[in-house]
Amino acid sequence: MTHTVVSSATREVVLGPDRPFVVIGERINPTGRSMLAAQMAAGDYGRVRTDALAQVAAGATVLDVNAGIPLADEPAILAEAIRQVQSVVDVPLSIDSSIVAALEAGLATYDGKALVNSVTAEEQQLAAVLPLVAKHGAAVVAITNDENGISEDPDVRFALARRIVERAADHGIDRCDIVVDPLVMPIGAIGQAGRQVMSLVRRLSTELGVNSTCGASNISFGLPNRVSINAAFLTMSIGAGLTSAITNPLEAEITQAIRAADVLAGNDPHCASWIRHNRPAVGTEGAGRGRRDTSRRRAAAGG
Amino acid sequence: MTHTVVSSATREVVLGPDRPFVVIGERINPTGRSMLAAQMAAGDYGRVRTDALAQVAAGATVLDVNAGIPLADEPAILAEAIRQVQSVVDVPLSIDSSIVAALEAGLATYDGKALVNSVTAEEQQLAAVLPLVAKHGAAVVAITNDENGISEDPDVRFALARRIVERAADHGIDRCDIVVDPLVMPIGAIGQAGRQVMSLVRRLSTELGVNSTCGASNISFGLPNRVSINAAFLTMSIGAGLTSAITNPLEAEITQAIRAADVLAGNDPHCASWIRHNRPAVGTEGAGRGRRDTSRRRAAAGG
Repeated sequence: MTHTVVSSATREVVLGPDRPFVVIGERINPTGRSMLAAQMAAGDYGRVRTDALAQVAAGATVLDVNAGIPLADEPAILAEAIRQVQSVVDVPLSIDSSIVAALEAGLATYDGKALVNSVTAEEQQLAAVLPLVAKHGAAVVAITNDENGISEDPDVRFALARRIVERAADHGIDRCDIVVDPLVMPIGAIGQAGRQVMSLVRRLSTELGVNSTCGASNISFGLPNRVSINAAFLTMSIGAGLTSAITNPLEAEITQAIRAADVLAGNDPHCASWIRHNRPAVGTEGAGRGRRDTSRRRAAAGG
Repeated sequence: MTHTVVSSATREVVLGPDRPFVVIGERINPTGRSMLAAQMAAGDYGRVRTDALAQVAAGATVLDVNAGIPLADEPAILAEAIRQVQSVVDVPLSIDSSIVAALEAGLATYDGKALVNSVTAEEQQLAAVLPLVAKHGAAVVAITNDENGISEDPDVRFALARRIVERAADHGIDRCDIVVDPLVMPIGAIGQAGRQVMSLVRRLSTELGVNSTCGASNISFGLPNRVSINAAFLTMSIGAGLTSAITNPLEAEITQAIRAADVLAGNDPHCASWIRHNRPAVGTEGAGRGRRDTSRRRAAAGG
């Protein structure tokens, strides 16, 4: 049973097949969010902090922080975003950039054991990112593509995962610190994309002994009602052994599906989290969350 | 790849890992429905027919018919219920009784290749039900308990499934006509019940080469928001290889989860069923189903 530990200064989160699924909040990312991009570029991190708080409140236990803004000073902005996020929440962070200098700046400022997002199987990437991961004692997301791009053949993607694990070992990085992203293809284009990922996730866990993550929403690209497909995809993937995903915890359907999957995977002891989040309303008072809590306290006091 | 074929006079339905999931509608069952029980006992089958039509409209491709009414003439009522159902819908039926004479009466009146629900691994049951299944060329649901009751050990349940398959072979019944129910335990009582069933379902498919079914709702017994747990359970089970379930197609969340799981399992070619059931509304007209259809026809005519 492989456990991947990431941490902030005060909190540790463990990825593993016998642990609650780890939701890595994806919202702090200026790609496609022009207002957020403009604010971050202008040194305004109000929205970054709000997004951090909202995602943690919604159930994210790790937050991804990305500062990929064209023509901006990404290393400086990423480092500042990390400081800002760490000033308001205590969950561990995933430091997300395709620019090595930005990962370096992020790691230098980060307080804890970060998840570096990401390294691919491209030679140049392996040579640049792995030493950085080793130096900071971080964990790293391994993306299963190389110089030839993303293969549609899941066996090729599995072989690339194995290559990254082997290269990481050369740098003294244990497989428990590699979190593999098997890459999710749109099922509207590739009908077997779901089966492929389930099979890959299972092999990553059983054959390679690594934890896994993915950007789940790619599966539903081009389809109507994407959220329901994404929720079902996560449920099925958790059954296959997926241990984390980079996703949007503010989507209630996603968060609810993950809670149910945790119950079914036996990773919600006594179904306590499920019961807490799905407690039926008591009498006529029970419409809102706060009211439910009041009723519960009252019942506890009375009983 | 094992295919189980069941049929009515005019329609064939195939259970298999490469086929859309088969929803066996559970509603025609007087257990816990006192009004339905009273009507059936009095020879009034109006509700039986209505339930049949509603379940098929909601997506059931097989209907379970049960007439277990205390002190009533179950064989006669079951046979009449089957005639009534076959008079209004053309889906294959599952003939559901624990009384051999009732199964016999149901099979005698049924037009097509039925699914007999069920046989256990109890010696007396095997001896009474298997000859009946063989005589009528039916398929049969195999329940994995024996004289000792239901074992909490999934290996015991797997061994019982194997025993039923072997005994059936002695009667000339091929494994393709055995649909095994691995028995779902309440996860509120047995925390590993979900993992156990997923593992059993996978083994039934890969090791024993049989199709599977289950009564999904047992998993959520005692928990709040049971429907969401049941929906997630079916999604995860379909990922593990479950090919049918006896469930309530009138629960929209269940039906929607199964459709999404069919997409992810690669069993909804071109995502056609998903797209049809999740087509976004067009303009302001699109609130209702009928209106969406109108818009679509118009778009097709205009294009």
